[in-house]
Amino acid sequence: HLPLALIAGPCQMESRDHALETASALKEIAGRLGIGLVYKSSFDKANRTSANAARGIGLKEALPIFAEIRESLALPVLTDVHEIYQCAPVGEAVDVLQIPAFLCRQTDLLIAAAQTGKAVNVKKGQFLAPWDMANVVAKVIGAGNADVLVTERGASFGYNTLVSDMRALPVLAETGAPVIFDATHSVQQPGGKGSSSGGQREFVPVLSRAAVAVGVAGVFIETHPDPDNAPSDGPNMVPLDEMEALLRQLMAFDRLAKGGS
Amino acid sequence: HLPLALIAGPCQMESRDHALETASALKEIAGRLGIGLVYKSSFDKANRTSANAARGIGLKEALPIFAEIRESLALPVLTDVHEIYQCAPVGEAVDVLQIPAFLCRQTDLLIAAAQTGKAVNVKKGQFLAPWDMANVVAKVIGAGNADVLVTERGASFGYNTLVSDMRALPVLAETGAPVIFDATHSVQQPGGKGSSSGGQREFVPVLSRAAVAVGVAGVFIETHPDPDNAPSDGPNMVPLDEMEALLRQLMAFDRLAKGGS
Amino acid sequence: HLPLALIAGPCQMESRDHALETASALKEIAGRLGIGLVYKSSFDKANRTSANAARGIGLKEALPIFAEIRESLALPVLTDVHEIYQCAPVGEAVDVLQIPAFLCRQTDLLIAAAQTGKAVNVKKGQFLAPWDMANVVAKVIGAGNADVLVTERGASFGYNTLVSDMRALPVLAETGAPVIFDATHSVQQPGGKGSSSGGQREFVPVLSRAAVAVGVAGVFIETHPDPDNAPSDGPNMVPLDEMEALLRQLMAFDRLAKGGS
Amino acid sequence: HLPLALIAGPCQMESRDHALETASALKEIAGRLGIGLVYKSSFDKANRTSANAARGIGLKEALPIFAEIRESLALPVLTDVHEIYQCAPVGEAVDVLQIPAFLCRQTDLLIAAAQTGKAVNVKKGQFLAPWDMANVVAKVIGAGNADVLVTERGASFGYNTLVSDMRALPVLAETGAPVIFDATHSVQQPGGKGSSSGGQREFVPVLSRAAVAVGVAGVFIETHPDPDNAPSDGPNMVPLDEMEALLRQLMAFDRLAKGGS
Repeated sequence: HLPLALIAGPCQMESRDHALETASALKEIAGRLGIGLVYKSSFDKANRTSANAARGIGLKEALPIFAEIRESLALPVLTDVHEIYQCAPVGEAVDVLQIPAFLCRQTDLLIAAAQTGKAVNVKKGQFLAPWDMANVVAKVIGAGNADVLVTERGASFGYNTLVSDMRALPVLAETGAPVIFDATHSVQQPGGKGSSSGGQREFVPVLSRAAVAVGVAGVFIETHPDPDNAPSDGPNMVPLDEMEALLRQLMAFDRLAKGGS
Repeated sequence: HLPLALIAGPCQMESRDHALETASALKEIAGRLGIGLVYKSSFDKANRTSANAARGIGLKEALPIFAEIRESLALPVLTDVHEIYQCAPVGEAVDVLQIPAFLCRQTDLLIAAAQTGKAVNVKKGQFLAPWDMANVVAKVIGAGNADVLVTERGASFGYNTLVSDMRALPVLAETGAPVIFDATHSVQQPGGKGSSSGGQREFVPVLSRAAVAVGVAGVFIETHPDPDNAPSDGPNMVPLDEMEALLRQLMAFDRLAKGGS
Repeated sequence: HLPLALIAGPCQMESRDHALETASALKEIAGRLGIGLVYKSSFDKANRTSANAARGIGLKEALPIFAEIRESLALPVLTDVHEIYQCAPVGEAVDVLQIPAFLCRQTDLLIAAAQTGKAVNVKKGQFLAPWDMANVVAKVIGAGNADVLVTERGASFGYNTLVSDMRALPVLAETGAPVIFDATHSVQQPGGKGSSSGGQREFVPVLSRAAVAVGVAGVFIETHPDPDNAPSDGPNMVPLDEMEALLRQLMAFDRLAKGGS
Repeated sequence: HLPLALIAGPCQMESRDHALETASALKEIAGRLGIGLVYKSSFDKANRTSANAARGIGLKEALPIFAEIRESLALPVLTDVHEIYQCAPVGEAVDVLQIPAFLCRQTDLLIAAAQTGKAVNVKKGQFLAPWDMANVVAKVIGAGNADVLVTERGASFGYNTLVSDMRALPVLAETGAPVIFDATHSVQQPGGKGSSSGGQREFVPVLSRAAVAVGVAGVFIETHPDPDNAPSDGPNMVPLDEMEALLRQLMAFDRLAKGGS
């Protein structure tokens, strides 16, 4: 088993400066810890709770910034796609295309992402059982791309609440794809604040420790220098200055999980 | 309150002949019963459980058939869209554009559908609370189209199972949009058969009676002359020859619900 | 199918006067409507959220009052038992022994209730699937008492929330036992107010109409002259002065459900 | 934080010999590992799915056996009580009285258990939110006994399935009571086999590692020399000969969780 990898970054790309700063900061942390890092940011929040919420800087502005992060910082980058037409241009600019949870059953989007030849990270829908992801993975592989990852980010549990079923992690692993645990969306309270989603940031260390102890290939953690003033997902993002301590913990659990069993 | 309306048809458009036959048969039934009918069929099943499942005849072949049904049978027609680019051409050919449940939070798709000027029927995501649909309706209205309907089709309840919360119907009605109860998808067992979804056809009359007694603007019922051999959603579609008796029952409950309270 | 029956009364017996008044008032309403009535009240709320909450007047004080209601008003009465030793004395004083939902799997309590020879109404646990009640009914019948009823009162749905699955009603009917829909506990929000349970009284007519349209033997509705000042379950009880209109509606739906199908 | 403790034993007491053998075997394992052990066994399975299932040897036969285990093996013992009258005699014979999950809201049982002066371990109901246990703990403490533990054993998640919400563990800890994770009942599938409950033994290590990584005072693991032939809970018990390896793992995670954060 490879050691724990990290997918991290702010929920949405706010500006070139903001992106480069957060990427640099994360690169430094990852370097000190010796953890593999993929920088994550979204150019468009296409499914905000409310139409009035900020959506991000858009595809055209974002792609050169991703390119700059890859070149100047030598970091692999990940972003999510929502429409078929986005896959080809995004595929040229990033290392990993991510399929949002709500869209994990959209066959054409999965195939278009697969056909870029880049890695594809599919988030498991909140409405799916973990074993249902075998069909999703098969769609990507069937399109000629075996470089597929699957991400657990919580299952619907009553209204406005998710629950993280740790049994899902070994079930997802049976697909053969590396399993990522998304620690920040798993603590989302979808729609929980009326016109935006709430979140329970305090449970990020709880759930990520649990997932890493069970055994995962990586963790996905959204982080921000100032979550309370972030344009989206503030209630569930981890403050950037708490990341190093959290990761240090998770890496210790990962070593134990992968060495000891 | 207007009397109960009906949205009905086979899950997917199989051929011109099949579409015209089922539309004619439904038109006859609706005529005998005096119930308003919108013919529903999908040109593409874009989110099948498995990539190997049949997806339908496609946009180009379907639009002229919808046009023919509108003209020759004078029936309004409804179909679902999955991509922004589909909205304009589909909007010219049909009376109602439907947004699938998984896509009910995709802002751009909602806006593109709204901008056709045609009615937009949004299915509530299995992962949404009923009150969350207020934000969804606001997205459509905010795009300049007040002709929006909302459809209840079940909420996630553990794995591979949905539950129909009848409290959702009055909550959805508070959006101001007419509320439709989707009686056939509400009995789906998503992914319940491994590489396809199962269904509990026997509960369609149970749930639709309950919903109509609570009070809805319409019911959505997928039907097929031979569900067991249908290319999709067979386990939950109602046999065409059972539709008339079922509708007669529902109309009686509707009269009581709307007259008596 | 027999016409709809009614089990109704205040959640807890507060005093002799209160019991006789509510029983008289309900008897009058039932007489005007021609609906069969069983008077319900609890002598002890044995599982209050908080130990500080009022529990009721107790077994010894309650039994003579139940006897008085039976004799002076000629009403059958129902109360719930929580301990084996209560079954025999309660069985002599009432017509129906009720097993609370939390206790529906306690074999000895079911058997002790069955052995009184009186009717036994078992509430389905919030943690049980409807088909699991077949085993519960078998426990009562196996103890020599075939006079058993089953009551739907909601299933756990995330935290502090219940959902009423209308499919449960025909599944419960397959046990052969008459099925009762408990319209007031189904709208409870267990523990939802911290040290007491919340409730959504406004959904009682919604859920009870749905259940009666599906088809049930009876409805269970807790009612109180002044729910907002009741010692327990106030948020979900129906004001006594709204009962007649509600029941009139439900009886119309019941006639349609039982005549028309 | 004290190191991880273990509550373990066969689901039900089958005979004196069986009890002494399993207790000895567990004592040897615990001694080798240096983990504190409480021996658990039930004298009566009072809430079996079916009335025909074996219930255990009963209170009278069991108490001397518990006494013998305490004396000859110097092990503290735990058993569960279902009726008020059982609390006093059981309290004299054992070290910890356990309140079953279904009964966790029965005020009188909690108080009777508390009044024995022995430790009381309350299992959280499958129908309760973790924060609801604050009221339960207050009932025990209010009866004069501060020696109360709380146990997580899964929450209802659709029908016949439980889910373990790891966020529950820190929430339960806020009650001030030591938190136990019941790894074998958390993988139960209640009623999942028709007339008995199913279970997913393979997930015991998964969920227990997760819980210990989050941080708990102890784990509760039912074990049996031959689970497939055990009279109850076979599908979820851990084979006795796998316990040592499992515990070794859990103790390593516990040291990391308690030392490293």
